Amino acid sequence: MIYDFITNMYFTGMTHGGMIHLSRAKEPEVFRGFWLFFCISKYLKEEIYMEYEISNRLSGVHGSMIRELFKLGASKDIISFGGGNPSAETFPCKEIEEIAAKGLGENPVSLLQYGLSEGYTPLRDTMKKYLEKKEGFDFENNELFIVSGGQQCADLTTKALVNEGDVVLTEEPAFVGCLNTFRSYGAKLVGIPMEQDGMNINALEEALKANPDAKLLYTIPSFQNPTGITTSLEKRKKVYELCCKYDIAILEDNPYGELRFAGENVPTIKSMDTEGRVIYAGSFSKVMAPAFRLGFLVFNKSLTGPLTVAKQCTDVHSTVLFQYICNEYINNYDFDKHLEDSRKVYEHKCNLMMECMKKEFHPSVTFGHPEGGLFVMAFLPEGMDSAPFVREAINRGVLSVPGAAFLADESQKSNGFRLNYSTPSDEQIVKGIEILGKLTYEWIK
Amino acid sequence: MIYDFITNMYFTGMTHGGMIHLSRAKEPEVFRGFWLFFCISKYLKEEIYMEYEISNRLSGVHGSMIRELFKLGASKDIISFGGGNPSAETFPCKEIEEIAAKGLGENPVSLLQYGLSEGYTPLRDTMKKYLEKKEGFDFENNELFIVSGGQQCADLTTKALVNEGDVVLTEEPAFVGCLNTFRSYGAKLVGIPMEQDGMNINALEEALKANPDAKLLYTIPSFQNPTGITTSLEKRKKVYELCCKYDIAILEDNPYGELRFAGENVPTIKSMDTEGRVIYAGSFSKVMAPAFRLGFLVFNKSLTGPLTVAKQCTDVHSTVLFQYICNEYINNYDFDKHLEDSRKVYEHKCNLMMECMKKEFHPSVTFGHPEGGLFVMAFLPEGMDSAPFVREAINRGVLSVPGAAFLADESQKSNGFRLNYSTPSDEQIVKGIEILGKLTYEWIK
Repeated sequence: MIYDFITNMYFTGMTHGGMIHLSRAKEPEVFRGFWLFFCISKYLKEEIYMEYEISNRLSGVHGSMIRELFKLGASKDIISFGGGNPSAETFPCKEIEEIAAKGLGENPVSLLQYGLSEGYTPLRDTMKKYLEKKEGFDFENNELFIVSGGQQCADLTTKALVNEGDVVLTEEPAFVGCLNTFRSYGAKLVGIPMEQDGMNINALEEALKANPDAKLLYTIPSFQNPTGITTSLEKRKKVYELCCKYDIAILEDNPYGELRFAGENVPTIKSMDTEGRVIYAGSFSKVMAPAFRLGFLVFNKSLTGPLTVAKQCTDVHSTVLFQYICNEYINNYDFDKHLEDSRKVYEHKCNLMMECMKKEFHPSVTFGHPEGGLFVMAFLPEGMDSAPFVREAINRGVLSVPGAAFLADESQKSNGFRLNYSTPSDEQIVKGIEILGKLTYEWIK
Repeated sequence: MIYDFITNMYFTGMTHGGMIHLSRAKEPEVFRGFWLFFCISKYLKEEIYMEYEISNRLSGVHGSMIRELFKLGASKDIISFGGGNPSAETFPCKEIEEIAAKGLGENPVSLLQYGLSEGYTPLRDTMKKYLEKKEGFDFENNELFIVSGGQQCADLTTKALVNEGDVVLTEEPAFVGCLNTFRSYGAKLVGIPMEQDGMNINALEEALKANPDAKLLYTIPSFQNPTGITTSLEKRKKVYELCCKYDIAILEDNPYGELRFAGENVPTIKSMDTEGRVIYAGSFSKVMAPAFRLGFLVFNKSLTGPLTVAKQCTDVHSTVLFQYICNEYINNYDFDKHLEDSRKVYEHKCNLMMECMKKEFHPSVTFGHPEGGLFVMAFLPEGMDSAPFVREAINRGVLSVPGAAFLADESQKSNGFRLNYSTPSDEQIVKGIEILGKLTYEWIK
């Protein structure tokens, strides 16, 4: 700043703030010496700043392209299909306000004082009952912790199980947030290509054979981020069998599970788990509110100790007030109806986007029809790179995320681009897809 | 369970639930075969449970003894000086309730939707102004993030800077929560003994010489946890100089800084930082409420990228509502008076405990007088081990934490035990110290 100030002063020949009474016109030599001194001191000052050496584990991880795009989407007059925000109209705002007032009015200290690392006991009990009934989970052999969002499920699991250099197998494309978590512990990612009904099973078995020491398979079987694909029951069984055969743990990430608006329910992989092999990650972000930063982790009891330690070392415990609000809401309000209403919102937005895509996109652009969740991925014809397409679309005012962001090796090309339908308004969906559609016709000759 | 059920059946000679119509008395041979079968299948069943291999980084970390003691303190009729909870009477409960109602009433979506990884911008700006004015921090070269509690300051810093096997230097004894964070990244801890005015400076220089590649020095210069010691200005300067000389970063942890109730303010090490070498960790846990899980990290701008990535990989962002509450409270309420009132509570409790200790403890038990914060450490005569003393005290209904919990090498012995004065009531302080005092007379012959 001093440098800029002096330089500025030098070129304008003016003083500033009355502190230095010199000007180029009046005493040029003196001033030039003065200026030189400041330039040198700036140089010296920069020289003595500490140079940090970033840890190996983080050196290879880039900031989330999506969260950077999110800022772009928020700051410019742009139609954003780039984010992954749940639809704000589904947040039970009034009820949250009501329960917060009740809790903070009646018993503030218990909601504001340090809580347990494992989570708020009443919410843990509620979720156990809920998952026992709804998903058939076995809490004789499993434990449930409340953690700080779905992201922390991946963070704690990786911290506890994955050494630097260990292989993590993952669907490809896959949720980049968790890929970055694995990378941030020095894991080596091996991608298993996705098909319309889940991972390519042969590729999975090949990868398991080729990586006998792989620690974890990462999957979002329902309404996958980024593709919107739901893994079929048959493939879920096959995935579980193979992981048993090759003795590898599964991280089943199910943040969108409650948001099914079409098709038949498919049992979770965790519900098939007789060997304590599946670590199940759930989230309150899509059924309550993302800024609660609450999720839950279900795992074989043998992991209770290490995961407690992992949680203590990371953020001690998750916010108690929001755990209280979730618990009160699930038990004393109409949670089922809330979910039903939310699903309708997502169904409407998804169907609208799909209709527009069918109408506007060049016929050689392919895409599936999600049965739930927040995302769909569209694919340009084989061999095309979606990155320049997405860039050009941004120039025209529409944001989406290039598929390469979701690859195990981000330097590879992808012909896919991810579209989020939960955040934009109906008008934005119609207009944005129209713009993208025109671009597909220009792009595909 | 099947095993227990059958075994139980075998010994009682009864059937259960009408499923199996055999009894030892009637058909002993058949039943014995049956029982054997179940025992084998139990064996087989246990065999096929997955055996998890815990990561190297977590294998050496034990659960926080304090958080386990915390449960003991909460569950039994015991006087607990063991926890580290701030005094609940200082929480601005009414104001928090009021601001929460305002925020959730007026603009709920912005407080419930995903937020920025760096933190809620208005609170970041508020804290920058606050720290600029109060501590003289330089935000031309530094950046400030809001994170999920003081613990996460250590977590993100270690994630970004410390490789497995790297040395972290630390005051000894030191806050075990952060020691465990360093351990959880595979760091090697080297302890620098504490004196009444801060680290032994010769020992620090020796350690810096012996570990030229050490990455970080960890210190709580004000009202240290667990000792209550405040590092003198002279020693702070010396610590900073040595870290410059040996080119190592400093993690200055200052969760209790606002809780000075005696003596003169001593400038933070960060305020002397001309080289961008000090990473400063602050917390809202002791000035607002711990269950907010909010803290802040101040660091040289060159670390902005890596720390953003670290935060994104860990929990994406911290809760927005509590960031909003902190910001509103600091700007629109009488934050200074709130701090003043809080300090009085701590002053009173500290003075009461010190009076009682002087009166009740055997004269050869030594301790300093904290000028702020939540803790004091008392020391049995040199050579004695505090662990059996603390165990016996628990038998008599008083909980404290043995000093060994705070050592770089926990297997070493310590003659110290940590006492917390912020959580117990006045009556508990008087009675608890009386019990401990009697025990010191029995223990020291």
